[in-house]
Amino acid sequence: MSSNLYIGLVHHPVYDKRKEIVATAVTNFDIHDIARCAKTFGIGGFFIITPLESQVQLAGRIIRHWVEGFGSVYNPTRKESLSLVRVSRTIDEADRAISDLWQKRVKRVATGASPHPKGIDFDFFRKLLKDETMPHFILFGTGWGLTQEVKDDSDYVLAPIEGKGYNHLSVRSAVAIILDRLLRDRIAGSE
Amino acid sequence: MSSNLYIGLVHHPVYDKRKEIVATAVTNFDIHDIARCAKTFGIGGFFIITPLESQVQLAGRIIRHWVEGFGSVYNPTRKESLSLVRVSRTIDEADRAISDLWQKRVKRVATGASPHPKGIDFDFFRKLLKDETMPHFILFGTGWGLTQEVKDDSDYVLAPIEGKGYNHLSVRSAVAIILDRLLRDRIAGSE
Repeated sequence: MSSNLYIGLVHHPVYDKRKEIVATAVTNFDIHDIARCAKTFGIGGFFIITPLESQVQLAGRIIRHWVEGFGSVYNPTRKESLSLVRVSRTIDEADRAISDLWQKRVKRVATGASPHPKGIDFDFFRKLLKDETMPHFILFGTGWGLTQEVKDDSDYVLAPIEGKGYNHLSVRSAVAIILDRLLRDRIAGSE
Repeated sequence: MSSNLYIGLVHHPVYDKRKEIVATAVTNFDIHDIARCAKTFGIGGFFIITPLESQVQLAGRIIRHWVEGFGSVYNPTRKESLSLVRVSRTIDEADRAISDLWQKRVKRVATGASPHPKGIDFDFFRKLLKDETMPHFILFGTGWGLTQEVKDDSDYVLAPIEGKGYNHLSVRSAVAIILDRLLRDRIAGSE
């Protein structure tokens, strides 16, 4: 089954510590950890979204190293996971790549650490994903999170993972937990 | 409630790519990501286990920076999570710290990517954790995973997370998913 869920890791527009809108740097660990999660859960694709030319080049070099270069021989399991990674300059550009492939409008789901009027819970999202004729694009913010505008422009905003009075997971951990909650029924030995 | 689950991140003894037993390097991302997960899920403590003096010193410096130094003011949420981190030279040393605190023998649970005769599933482990008078210590291997001997010496070995024909999560992602599966009922807004 070709998965109907795609991941976007957004480096712009996101907030920084002071709630100003910035473009964050691409992080090697993010690419590897999230690509390996994406491969584990059979995700359709993983888009790194950054408008900065230097970061587009950097992400491209990392991907090529593991998919075509020395890394592909040194560690073939990384080739499998990094093959899922694409780089896009904007959320809309990634969205168009998915809608071109499916010839359908893509349902966009934002994530974040606070509730939102368009909020949906995990159970609702799992039900949406059961319709395998519909592509879905889940967005994760780097830095201090996706901007309000990105959330307002999405179809839905997924409920936050609420810790025990502490709500500061890394984006890598949040992706792992959210994919497991959404897709564990699709993989073996999950419980 | 003080949690009866403790995490150990083992840097020795673990396998390398060729299945030789090595001591891996402490990684800054591991400390931060796992500490933030530990705080989110209300874990009792997070032990970094390394016998190498240079690595003990490095881990200590990172922890002090965020708990007592500049980092504690710059980002107080990191202080909260990094306060859970301890450094031990061996698994047994960490185990003794927990058993001294609880005045009880600690149940030790190893993790890994392959099945084991002492294997238990997530449901079984959740039931064990319901007995809040008993401390449990879950071990995660860095590198290419915990040695056979560590698994054989544990009370149980947790079932692997089986991906869709791909079983190569980072240890950071594995910790996030396993804590969520074990403890999501203890935190709010989990589903």
